[in-house]
Formats: sequence, C-alpha cells, structure tokens
Amino acid sequence: MSETSNQPRSTFYNSASTPIGSNLSRQRTLSSSSIDPYEDPVVGLERVTQTQVRRRPRRNDISEAVEGRRDIEEDHALSSKFESLNYEICENQLYRDAESKSGHQLNLRRIQLNRWIACFLIGICTALAGIVIDILVHTSADFKFHYILQTLVDRCDNGEAIAGGGCMWLVQLAWMAYNCSMVFLAACLVIFWSPIAAGSGIPQIKCFLNGIHIPEVVGLKTLVVKVFGVSAAVAGGLCAGKEGPMIHSGGAIGAGISQGKLHKKLDPGFFKEFRNDREKRDFVSAGAAAGVAAAFGSPIGGVLFAIEEGASFWNQALTWRMFFSAMISSFTLNATLTYYFKQGGLLSWNGLANFGVFEDKSYTIWEIPLFLMVGVIGGCTGALFNSLNYRISEFRKKFVSNKWQRLVEALLVAAVSAFTGFVTLFVVDDCVPLGLGMNRTEGLNRLYCKKGEYSAVANLFFANPEESVKSLFHSPIGSFKPTTLLIFAIEYFVLSVWTFGLAVPSGVFIPALLTGAAWGRLFGLGVEWLFPNVAGIDPGKYALMGAAAQLGGVVRMTISLTAIILEATKDMTFGLPIMLVLMIAKWVGDFFSEGLYDLCIELSEVPLLGWNAPKMARNITASKVMRSDLVAMEKRVRVGRVVEILAATSHHAFPLVDRIDESDTSRLPDYGRLEGYILRTQLVALLKKRAFVGEGEEGLMGEMMSEQDFIDVDLREEKVEMGAADEMAMMDLAPYMHSHPHRVPLNASLPFIYRLFRGLGLRYLMVVNEDNRLRGIITRKDVARFKNTKGFALRELFISDHQF
Amino acid sequence: MSETSNQPRSTFYNSASTPIGSNLSRQRTLSSSSIDPYEDPVVGLERVTQTQVRRRPRRNDISEAVEGRRDIEEDHALSSKFESLNYEICENQLYRDAESKSGHQLNLRRIQLNRWIACFLIGICTALAGIVIDILVHTSADFKFHYILQTLVDRCDNGEAIAGGGCMWLVQLAWMAYNCSMVFLAACLVIFWSPIAAGSGIPQIKCFLNGIHIPEVVGLKTLVVKVFGVSAAVAGGLCAGKEGPMIHSGGAIGAGISQGKLHKKLDPGFFKEFRNDREKRDFVSAGAAAGVAAAFGSPIGGVLFAIEEGASFWNQALTWRMFFSAMISSFTLNATLTYYFKQGGLLSWNGLANFGVFEDKSYTIWEIPLFLMVGVIGGCTGALFNSLNYRISEFRKKFVSNKWQRLVEALLVAAVSAFTGFVTLFVVDDCVPLGLGMNRTEGLNRLYCKKGEYSAVANLFFANPEESVKSLFHSPIGSFKPTTLLIFAIEYFVLSVWTFGLAVPSGVFIPALLTGAAWGRLFGLGVEWLFPNVAGIDPGKYALMGAAAQLGGVVRMTISLTAIILEATKDMTFGLPIMLVLMIAKWVGDFFSEGLYDLCIELSEVPLLGWNAPKMARNITASKVMRSDLVAMEKRVRVGRVVEILAATSHHAFPLVDRIDESDTSRLPDYGRLEGYILRTQLVALLKKRAFVGEGEEGLMGEMMSEQDFIDVDLREEKVEMGAADEMAMMDLAPYMHSHPHRVPLNASLPFIYRLFRGLGLRYLMVVNEDNRLRGIITRKDVARFKNTKGFALRELFISDHQF
Repeated sequence: MSETSNQPRSTFYNSASTPIGSNLSRQRTLSSSSIDPYEDPVVGLERVTQTQVRRRPRRNDISEAVEGRRDIEEDHALSSKFESLNYEICENQLYRDAESKSGHQLNLRRIQLNRWIACFLIGICTALAGIVIDILVHTSADFKFHYILQTLVDRCDNGEAIAGGGCMWLVQLAWMAYNCSMVFLAACLVIFWSPIAAGSGIPQIKCFLNGIHIPEVVGLKTLVVKVFGVSAAVAGGLCAGKEGPMIHSGGAIGAGISQGKLHKKLDPGFFKEFRNDREKRDFVSAGAAAGVAAAFGSPIGGVLFAIEEGASFWNQALTWRMFFSAMISSFTLNATLTYYFKQGGLLSWNGLANFGVFEDKSYTIWEIPLFLMVGVIGGCTGALFNSLNYRISEFRKKFVSNKWQRLVEALLVAAVSAFTGFVTLFVVDDCVPLGLGMNRTEGLNRLYCKKGEYSAVANLFFANPEESVKSLFHSPIGSFKPTTLLIFAIEYFVLSVWTFGLAVPSGVFIPALLTGAAWGRLFGLGVEWLFPNVAGIDPGKYALMGAAAQLGGVVRMTISLTAIILEATKDMTFGLPIMLVLMIAKWVGDFFSEGLYDLCIELSEVPLLGWNAPKMARNITASKVMRSDLVAMEKRVRVGRVVEILAATSHHAFPLVDRIDESDTSRLPDYGRLEGYILRTQLVALLKKRAFVGEGEEGLMGEMMSEQDFIDVDLREEKVEMGAADEMAMMDLAPYMHSHPHRVPLNASLPFIYRLFRGLGLRYLMVVNEDNRLRGIITRKDVARFKNTKGFALRELFISDHQF
Repeated sequence: MSETSNQPRSTFYNSASTPIGSNLSRQRTLSSSSIDPYEDPVVGLERVTQTQVRRRPRRNDISEAVEGRRDIEEDHALSSKFESLNYEICENQLYRDAESKSGHQLNLRRIQLNRWIACFLIGICTALAGIVIDILVHTSADFKFHYILQTLVDRCDNGEAIAGGGCMWLVQLAWMAYNCSMVFLAACLVIFWSPIAAGSGIPQIKCFLNGIHIPEVVGLKTLVVKVFGVSAAVAGGLCAGKEGPMIHSGGAIGAGISQGKLHKKLDPGFFKEFRNDREKRDFVSAGAAAGVAAAFGSPIGGVLFAIEEGASFWNQALTWRMFFSAMISSFTLNATLTYYFKQGGLLSWNGLANFGVFEDKSYTIWEIPLFLMVGVIGGCTGALFNSLNYRISEFRKKFVSNKWQRLVEALLVAAVSAFTGFVTLFVVDDCVPLGLGMNRTEGLNRLYCKKGEYSAVANLFFANPEESVKSLFHSPIGSFKPTTLLIFAIEYFVLSVWTFGLAVPSGVFIPALLTGAAWGRLFGLGVEWLFPNVAGIDPGKYALMGAAAQLGGVVRMTISLTAIILEATKDMTFGLPIMLVLMIAKWVGDFFSEGLYDLCIELSEVPLLGWNAPKMARNITASKVMRSDLVAMEKRVRVGRVVEILAATSHHAFPLVDRIDESDTSRLPDYGRLEGYILRTQLVALLKKRAFVGEGEEGLMGEMMSEQDFIDVDLREEKVEMGAADEMAMMDLAPYMHSHPHRVPLNASLPFIYRLFRGLGLRYLMVVNEDNRLRGIITRKDVARFKNTKGFALRELFISDHQF
C-alpha cells in the first residue's frame, strides 16, 4: 500500500515542481494556447486523492513530510535553491487577536526600539568588518613591501646594478609567490567552504532584496569567508576591489544581527520578533547601506544604493533606519581608523576608498562636451567589459566547473597579474623625477630608475589600488607618460575582466575606477595637447570623469553612483559633470549590453522581478500565468492528509477552500470558494505542537498556538513524531490561515499581476473565477518567467537548476 | 415627474457624498457596530431605481449630468475640492488591443522619448522660474539699497550727525513704504487672484504627490502668482524664503509641461499621451525635484526630497527622470546666473541659496556631543515654532478670514518686520571695525556707526537673508556680539512664526536657517567662552549646525535635508554631524509636535494617506471601511439610465455587475457579481461621442471609440446634447470598463487595504462577498479617515469642507 501510494506522490511532485512546459524548448516566443496550464493540464498527471491519503504512513515519512522528498529535490533543485521570500504579513486570527492583548502597545514600542538598536548594531558591526579588511590589507601590504621586497631590493642594490635587473628574478619570484599564496588562501576559503562568497556579492544582495532567497547568501560562513577572502584577494594583488564584498558583508551582518543569531547553534534568542522574511529583508537593506557607507564613507550613497539597486519594497521609516545604520557605520569606521592610523584627533570624512581632495575645483562650460565624450567612451568600454566578462563566465561555467580547475585558474590569474606588472615595469621606461607626485622612493619604485627618480609604472602597478587612483586624480601634469597610461589601462582592463568571476571574493568598483582613471587621464593629456594655450586643463579632472564613466558603463547605476563618487571625493563641485558622464555612460552602455550585475543574475538564472512589467504582455492573462495543478485543503482537515500532502509536495503554501470535488479522477480536483491559505511552516509548527484533536472529538482543536510557536521553523531540521492514531485526528486551520489573501480574476493581465507582486512584495497570488472559486495560484517565479527580448517581443523563460 | 425624481436624487446625493455617520461627533474613538455602513445602512435612504430613471430628462439636465449637481456640490464641497488622483491604469479592451496595433512598439518608444523631452523642458523651465525670481529679488534689492536708501542716507549724512538719527525717520519711512508696497503687491496677487499660491507650497505638493488633487494647485495662474508673489514678498523684506515656492513652482511647471499646455485655452496639443493622473503625478514629482535643485543647487537633495516627502509611488525609471530634470535645472540656473552676474567663465556649484564654503573643515570627536546638544535645542525651538504657528493659523482661520483682513495683516507684518529692524539697530550698539567680515560699508550699514566701522545688526537685518546666513557661517570670531545674536534670533524667530501662513507666497527654509544660524553662532561663542584654551572652535561651524537643527526641528526631514545642506554648502566634511543633528532634532521635535508641513495638512483637513497603516486597526474589516451605498450598473445599460445616474451622483467611478436586484425597494439594491468598473469621464466621453445604438438594434455599439477620445474630458466644461430618442438607446460598456479591478473580501483588514492603496496608488477598491458579489466600494478617502491618536488609539475622522 505504501509502495503504491509512493508512486503517484513522486509523480505528483514532479509535475508540481517542474515549471509547466519544461519539456518544451528552454526559451521561446510566447504562443497562445499551449502554455495555458489551466485549460490544458499536464497530460497523465496523477494526483493525491483523498482515498490514497487515507493510509498509515511509515514512521520515517514524517521527516520527509517536513522537508519534501529530498531525493527528488536534488533533481529539481530550483525550488529549494531559489526560494522566494514572503514580504506579506500573514493576517490570521492570532495576528488579529494580538492587538487586543494588554501588552500590545508596549510591545509595538519595544519592537520599534529594537529596530533602532538592531540598526545601530548593524552599523557598528559592518564598520568593524570594514576595519578588519582594511587593517588586514594594510598589514599585508606593509609586510610585502617592507619585509620581503625592501630586503630583497636592498640585497640586489648592494650586489648588482639596479638597471641591469640581474637579480630581479628573485624579487619577482618572491612577489609572485606571496601573491599566489594569498590568492590560494582566498580561493580555498571560497571553493571548499563557501562557494556563494565568490565574486562581488552585489548581485546576490540585489536578488535577496528583490525577494529571492539564495541559500546561505547572508549566512555567518559567507560573512567570514567574504571578509577574510577579500582581504587575501586584495593582498594577493588581484585586480579586485573590496567594496562589493563590503556591501555583501553588510547585508550578511544585517541578516545575522536582526535574527539575533549568526548561526542556528549560536542562538541567544535576541530579536525573535524579527525572525521572518519581511523584517529580515529590511535589515539586509540597512546592512547593505551600511556596507556602502563603510566602503566609501558615503552614507547618502549607501541609502541611495539600497534604494536604487536593492530595496524593492521601500518605505520612509525603513529609509531612516537605513540612513541611521549607514551613518553609524561610516562614523565608527572613520573614528576607529583615525585612531588606528594615528592621523590626529580630527575626524575628517573617510572611508575605505578615499580618493583625496581636488585642489582645482572648477571647470568651464566648454569642457562639458569633452566630459560627455568621456561618458561615451566609458559606456563603450564598460559594455565591452561586460560582454567579455559574460563570455568568460559562460566559458567558465562549461569548462572550469571542477573545484581544482577553479583553484588553478585563480592561481593562474594571480601569477599573470604579478607577472604583467613586472614585464611592464621592464618594458616601459617611465622614470619621473622625485618631487613630481612622489617625494620618496620605496621598494619597487626605485627599480629600473636612476637615483632621484621613481618609476611611474611601479606607482600604478604595485601600489594599493586606491592609492593608484588617488595619484591618477591628483598628480601634477607630467607625472605619467601617455604610453604608460595607455598600456596600464589596457592591461588592467584585461586583467580585471578576467578576475571578475574568479572563485575569490572580489569587487569590480576599484578596478573599474582605476582603469577609467588611467584612460581618463590619457584623454586629459590629449585635451591638453590639442589646446596647449588654454590654461586650467587638469588631466586629474579627466581622470575623475574617466573613472566615473568606466564604472558607470560597467555597473549602470546613476544616482547612487553619483552620490558615492561625490562623497568619496568629499566634494560637490564636480557633481554636475559626474552626473552627466554617468548618465551618458549608462545610455551608451545600455545600447550594447546589460549592466554587469544584471548579466551575473541572468547567468545564474535567478527569477528576478525587474522594475517594470514586461512589455507586450497586456494580453497575457492570469489564466495563462497561473499554475492550476495546485494542492488545496479544507479548513478542517485530517492530520494524515496534511502529512501526506507535505510529504508529497514541495509547495510552501496551500490554499484553503470550502469544498474539494475529486469525483472526476481523470481531471484536476474542482476546488470551491477561496477561504485563505496556510504556509508549510505553519502546518509543520501545528503538527509539531500537536494542535489537533482525535476523530469524533469536538471543540477546541488541541491547544491554541501562540505567535512564538510559528517562529524558527526550520524546514530542514524539524523532526515530528506522529503516531498511528494521530493520522485520523482532525486539525482546524481556520485560526492560523491568512483569511483574505490577495486574489485576481482569471482575466487579470500580466502587467496588473506584476504590479501587485512588485508593489506589495507578494509570494503567492490566488486566481479565482467569477464565483470566487479557486482556479489556480501564481507564484513569484511564475511571474518572473516572462521577459522581454531586446526587440520588445515577449519570451517565456524556463528556469533550470543552476548554481549561483 | 422630473420634480419627483429630482427630490430623491438630491437626497441620494446627500447620503452618498456625506461621509457615513457625519451626524455623529466629528471625531471619536472607534466603536464597533454603529459605523458599519454595510450592516447598518443609512436609515431612510432613497435611491434611483430603474423605474425612476426611465423618464425623459430636460435638455439642460445634461450639463448637470456631466458635472454632478453644482448647487449641491457647493454645500458639500469636499468631494470636488479634494478629489483623489487615480494612479491605476484602466485596463480595458482598448488598452489591450493597443498592443496588437502595428505602430505600438514605435509608439512606446516615442512615449519613452517624450518623457525624457518633457523632463528636459521641466528642468529648463524650472530653472527659468528660479532665474526670474532671483533677478527680480536682486534688482529690487539694488533699487532699494542704491537708489532709495543711499540717496537718503547721503542726504542725512550731509545735513545732520549720523549717530543722532535726526532724519533717520525719513530713511525708515522710505524703507517701510517700499517694503509695504512690495508686500501689498504680493498679497493682492494671492488674495484676489490665486489664494492657493499662499504659503510655502510644499504641503500642497506633498498632498498632490500623495494622490490628492487640490484644484488649481498646479495651474498656470498659481505658477505666475507664486513666481512674482514670492519675488515681491522677499523683496518686501518679509521673513520669507523663496525655496518652498520654488519647489511648488517646479511642481506646477512639471504638471503644465507634461500636459502639453499651461491652460485649457492655450493647448497646442503636445504630449497628449501624458494627459492622465498617473503621468501627471510623475511629472509633478520631477518638477519638485527640479525645484529643489534650482533652489539649493542640490540635484541629489531634490531627488531625495521628492522621494522622502513626495513620491508615494516610486520606481527606478521615474527616479532617473527626476534626476535628469534636477540636473538640467541646476545646470541651467547655474550657467545663466553665472553669465548674468558675470562671475567669469568658470561654472562652480551654485543655486539660489548658496551658503559659501567653509575654510576650516575639521571637527574633533569631543565636539560631537556639543553638536548633539545643538540638535536637541533645534528640536525644541522647531517644535515651539510649529505649535506657535499652528495656533496663529487656527486664530487666522477663525478671525482673519476676510480678504481685506488678510491684506491688512500682511501689510502689518511687513511694517512690523521693517520697524523691528530699525528699532534693533537703534537699541543695540554693535559696531564692528571694517575688515572683520566686511570690507566696505553701504547704505544702512553705516548708520549709527563711526567711520571705519559697520553695523553688525544692519548686516543681519537688512541684507539679503542668504547673505546673512553666509556671514553667520563664515565671519571671523568677533564679527557679532552675543547680545546682537540673541536679540536677532528671538526677533527673527517671532517674525517668521508670524509670517509663515500669511497670504503671500513664502517659504520657511531660509528663515529657519537664519534663526538657527544666529543661535547656533551664539552657542558657538558660548563654547568658546567655556573652553578658552582649546584651539579650533569656530562659531561658524556651530552656526551651520544650529541652522540645520532649527530647520530640521521645523520641517522634520532627515535624509533629503542632509543632502540639501551638504550640497548647498558644497562640502561633504560636515556630513556626519549634520546628519546626527538632523536626526536628533527630528526625534526631539517629534516628541512635542508634528512637522510644520504635516500640521498645515492637518489644518486643511486633507485626506492624506500616511506612510504606514494606522495601528490598532487589525480588527477593522473591509465591511466597516467600505461604503455600501454605491451605484452600480450593468454592462449593457440604457443611455437614459446613465444620464440619470451621472446627474444624480457625484461618484467618479461606477462598478459594473452582472445583475442588479432592486425588488426590495426598502433596502439598497442587491448587486450581482463584480465585472469591472467604469469612470465618470469615460461615460461622459461615450455620451459625447454617441457610442450607443437605438433600442432593439444589435451588433456594434455605435462607433468604436479610440484611446484619444477619452483624453481631455473636463467634467466642468463638457456639454453633451442628448435627444429624446437617445434616452432609450443602449450602451455597451464592456469594451471600455476596467475588467479586473482590485477587490478584497469583506473580512480584509484595514492595514491590508491600506497597503493596497499605498502600494498601488489606488483610488477605488471593490469589496466582494464570498461569491464575488459586489458589496461595497472603498475609496481613498474612506481609508484616510482612520488615524491614530498620540496614544495609539484609533480614531475616525470626518473630513469637513475647508479651504486649503
């Protein structure tokens, strides 16, 4: 009996969890009738019928029941990997009754206060993460420059001629060895411990805030790997920034602190009221804002970032808390680093990326067209960056999938990066007299140059990237030769294209800024050469514009990026040209390709909901979008039936109807009027607390549950013991169900549905017919399937299982 | 017959347009059963029944039909004065069919392009408005100082002793006369031409963006009065800023340009696709952002302002366009004023309010508690400002309601403002040597002072307020005596409390900044006196903090205000302390009173929807919120019936149902299943185009309408000729109705409904029972009725008729 009923269950599961029509080609232009799942249900579908359910399950079925069938889950991992977050409040009787309790108002105030406390802690901790990264990178750089290189260079100095480069192989080898070992560390952390921590982290945070839960994306492990991994990657001389990972770390800290625990085993029980998707998402956005604030010393930019790139569901109170987190984070980092580096008692504006102050802050009106040209170039090079990186990522996905291959690739990039620097240093002869941009030489700067001179190439390749950006912005006019800038820009561009997407935590902000600053300065030198008689042309200004243009062309942010750059350069004067440059770069870039983060997300096949509903979708109705092969229950339901359904499906919500007609077994059941829905976690909590009464008994259904009982239900962990007699007991779901879920009629259009999902952060939407009878359910993923192609045509995606 | 049917109609109207239960006390704590309009319909309600409707209306009924009954409207002006805007797209057959037309994609691109063009024009025109205001104020100041005063002072100089003040009465008189005549001009413009243009305009824009249409608030007349009125008010020496009116002007320009016309008689037919509430609201937010950008040279602040204070329904694409408008506005103003005032070819950051650059940009960590204290003081004085102003406004509402009284009050304030300055100048002896803050004396500065000295008092009272703020920020330490600052702060505080709310266009930004700068500088002098041995205490820094604190305490904005102040001072260094100060000021201020703009809105009884649903409202269900006395139609309806309903009601939307059962005339009709709804404007357009066929005929219902036919239906203007035979013709509303309106069941809670309205910008929400039968309608106003008192308790407001 259990064998016979197992068979249909797994079949049922298959049909339920596979996106409808996945047997069709993976992506195709939408045609009318064949994808209507309601009118044309999947052929041969077998269902869990009442008769099948009335059996005694084996004891070990229960853990299966809680989690869904694990073996099947691995075949169709999509639903477990990219689950949606639920921003909707479950308005059930418990929720309504809470208001009449005596302590309710006090409780609301306490929760409000706790929100601010949590945001304060998020700010502090994000700053601490930034401080750790900064100090680690600085310590490593000190060690590398002073103890390894200085010693070796000094030894070479004593023995052989400097310019000859006889023992330079030793320096080079030591340098490469150090870099590779650092990158090895970073890559091992990522590959063997937390693969999700690879890359920038911004796409992941963006997805999270959009409402998609990528497993472990905001976990403690990810945070640790991110912080130490990015320190090692930057210390290892990769073309990698620490800013993206800082933002991801901030998000992880936001999630961790708001849940009152960083791991399920370390749970002091704080902030229990925030343990739901809704609150968690809000705190992650505060964390992301704090991350930007720490990375760039830019609280306004952080808030704008969270709004522009992230927080889909935004409100004023949340903005204030984000702002508070960002402010605290920026302040803490500022004060601590001021103290650590003993820069005196004055707190001036700071951040991890600090691009110095421009001396000459003016520009003339005829420079604006030149700035716009810089924007156009930035848009083009940014688009080139994106499409090259996309191809490399695709290649990587196919051919560098193995863990060891990924490790070797990371080491290869580290070695090539170091090698390129040395080769350039050897080939390009750009020795600049001391006093021009630099006052003393250390380590590599002296190599290949006469006394009293330093190497501009070494200054670019071997310094801290932030310092290189600073010197490109502020060095006087003769500091860099055009050839040096050109070669550097090209090499750095290629290296950073290759680096982004490696199995190490690495951001793209600083590499893009540095590349852009190099070609921007080159552009400035060109302008100066063309107009030799016009005073006041500062190549540093063009370096700033180039940096903005390149970064804008890559990431396609406008308003938040403007704020970030303005705050990082501590100055408002260039606000207008920077805005223009970013806008032009975005327009030009959008003409060629999508933004880097969007491409990442596309590659990972995450069901992201964009800002606007797809075009040409007005005639797609709810009946075409919905899934009609749903599983509903009645409000009073037998425990055995619930266990059966939980085991047989992986759905996370079950609509409740007043009547289920399963008389015609060749078709899907005919459901009655919609009365509400209940979540899988709630059902599991009810079973766990045994909130049911034996057959025939009436009255109160077991003990009434409290709100606390529904918190912390981890579907992967729970084990529920269920005896044979319990199977026949009855549960009353009415007090726990959301009694007035959002619903649309069958003729509602896709844009209409889209606005509901976007505007309210829904996970489920019920579809009813003209009599309010349940006809289907629309999930976030069903909506995200519809995308526009470049030429406005609508296509329907089927999301396959793929690692982020 | 027509008489008999008139009677019930007006009764019906009364019951429909009066908020349910308005016979109860105006505001009371919510009790359960008596306010449930569905279960307890208004007793004695008479209705338009099918029988009553079947009559031939008089010819002149039609214009009544279009507009609703005007005489009744004047008794219950609420519904016409504070109409809601509809942000929802009417998804009817026309809308769906548009997609399959050949030119649709091209059209979408064209509309997209037009949006950018409109935003560009909004930016340009808003800047032009700012330029006009600035040049007018400057010209007037030049005229006043150089031609009137200089001449008079010179004459006094020659004749009598300066310090004696013998002929000073002449100077004073001339000064007062000039000021009064300017204020007379401003007040006359406002009182006799456009009363809505009085005050700051920010509350009005906030209401508009929240979804409430206050008549003429964004009209051409308002714009003209605002621009010239504020110029005259500022020129008249009132304690008034031009920034709030700039923002209002921006909003009006946004509305005007996006509608392709500034007035219905001047309609070149541009931008017809934007002639709906949805697009208009978006463009008004772009205009408001452009207004801030022009006023403070602060594009980021402008966008944040529009987001924080205004745009309830925000999306990324809109943000970019707002940003673009703000950028263009800021740039145009900057470039033009640079050219006009011949400040050289360099474009540096600018705006109407320009507070100069701080020389010393650092602060120490122990100064932060001092800044926080400034924040606390600002919160208190801000709250004091608000509650005093609220009381004055209430007084004004009761006793200064007459036009002439209002004019006299304005003149009185102008005279008192001028007089106060002279008295202070006479009483306070604060002569400062030249070279300290000022290098040369002009006009009044010389009065009462010896040669080689100038009067610090005159420098505060008689200069352009922006200049006074600048000198408080940047003057060296001995420039102002503490007594001067104290007296000035108190006097200016009192005057600005009195001024805000006068019948002239006047903002509160600059007065608050100036008051705050004065007491902030005083605070700084106190700090310096307490810690005489600590170097680096600059009272100017404290003036900046004081200005921020005072303004923050008054308007209670945080993030946008931070951005605005940072951008106006062209510097990021003080970002962190300014944020802290603003946040503290808001917290402290919120403890005592609401923000100034919110108080204004409260006083005007506008049904504003706040950010969050009221608390303690979980048990208020849709059946209690909704109005059950609605008027529905069937999809196929007789023309006479439509005309009758339009004449009898003032509703703006009519639900369509499949069946209306009116057999029991003692009760409200029993409506069938909800099928859609249709707007009053659509019905009028259908009647106007005669989209109906005679009785008995079948097939296509008249000529099919195009989308164009539904644009530009002005309910106040349309006259429709309707013959006797037409009365019996049938209309088919199906192709024009919104076929899947948002709906909730009877048990939906108020917070749930609130989130729908807030998240989607709804105007109407249908309430259905478990069979999807129409049971009521919830409008924006029905939701806005529910507010929390200070102590969390829920109260229900009944909005009375009141002038904004």
